[in-house]
Amino acid sequence: MKPRLLEIRKGVLEKNDLLADGLRRRFHTAGVYALNWVSSPGTGKTALLEATLRRLRERGLRVAALVGDVATENDANRLARSGAPVRQIVTGGNCHLEADMIESHLTAAGWDLNGLDFLFIENVGNLVCPSSYDLGEDLRVVLLSVTEGEDKPLKYPSMFNSSDVAMITKIDLAEAVEFDRASAYANLEAVRPGLRVFETSAKTGKGVEAWVDFLVEQRASRRPQG
Amino acid sequence: MKPRLLEIRKGVLEKNDLLADGLRRRFHTAGVYALNWVSSPGTGKTALLEATLRRLRERGLRVAALVGDVATENDANRLARSGAPVRQIVTGGNCHLEADMIESHLTAAGWDLNGLDFLFIENVGNLVCPSSYDLGEDLRVVLLSVTEGEDKPLKYPSMFNSSDVAMITKIDLAEAVEFDRASAYANLEAVRPGLRVFETSAKTGKGVEAWVDFLVEQRASRRPQG
Repeated sequence: MKPRLLEIRKGVLEKNDLLADGLRRRFHTAGVYALNWVSSPGTGKTALLEATLRRLRERGLRVAALVGDVATENDANRLARSGAPVRQIVTGGNCHLEADMIESHLTAAGWDLNGLDFLFIENVGNLVCPSSYDLGEDLRVVLLSVTEGEDKPLKYPSMFNSSDVAMITKIDLAEAVEFDRASAYANLEAVRPGLRVFETSAKTGKGVEAWVDFLVEQRASRRPQG
Repeated sequence: MKPRLLEIRKGVLEKNDLLADGLRRRFHTAGVYALNWVSSPGTGKTALLEATLRRLRERGLRVAALVGDVATENDANRLARSGAPVRQIVTGGNCHLEADMIESHLTAAGWDLNGLDFLFIENVGNLVCPSSYDLGEDLRVVLLSVTEGEDKPLKYPSMFNSSDVAMITKIDLAEAVEFDRASAYANLEAVRPGLRVFETSAKTGKGVEAWVDFLVEQRASRRPQG
């Protein structure tokens, strides 16, 4: 990167971190547990998010989602089928979400944060850009589908290293694509030792209950912010 | 994007375009047909590239490849199995290749362009960033795997719109993932009317001969630059 660009980008990131800290405080005060979902395009983020929203709602939990995309409102339309309030953020060429987009879209959506238990943020499909941008989330989830290749953690280390949980998706296709589970886990462990890993299939529902259990526990056990 | 960033980025793009034009002239003068391969991570760029390099070599054509990645030299090692000269470009966090990287790595590789028929450039796995950066290529190929979802052209219009050919990969998995071919083609056509589409499987070899035939024809029919 050019030195001048680098300097300006540093300023952008510092400003983003400040805004993200403010968001995190607001979320904690309101009792909202916030997640930032990142992955390359086509890992099945939206399908798994729809399944997650449905199951949390079935358990009586109050959920909402912000969905980032470079173009189109397809994902918001898909997610709205879950019955949860959903708002699309069209970034218009930007390859990631930033904290100020979250702030302005929360305001525009008019959601009462005190009336929410979980806020899901689906980032733009990209394994590079979103890694540097804190959105005030409690949990960053990186998704990796069995069809993508087991080497992705090594090739996109910042994204995997900055995540709290890795989700292996489309596990129903593992056999068809000869997914090498041992290699995938070894690569995740190499980049982010101790990373918690889940395996799910939005299609068959496999692993989704365990994932939702984990989210409910995480929210319950979160230390209240002073 | 912030106005100040936008202004500087414009300068970066203009400088890149100048360098890319210079590269294109060098390639044409030397008789090298250059390709820029773009896609999200995990579409099978490297596997198809390896198959393409092998087949062109079997036909007596002289090929080389530059491979961009944020981190690791895995892809270069895989491609080297084809017997072609390969050089990895590790971008260290940059989400795309730029013309100056191509120039400096060609110099560092020490390849004689007059001794090459095809130069393949495998871009960083990303459907957003690489779209704005001309690398002096004759042909930009965007890859879309059947496992990714048929909506990707609509969600990443700049990348598909700036490409000359779309390659649908992993076609052997089409049935397992219930690939909706009509929808994929309609979305490609909506974003880039008249876009030439190929379907391939690096695993079974399906479609690879037709693709290699096309490349050989394209190179032969290219109008010499004045």
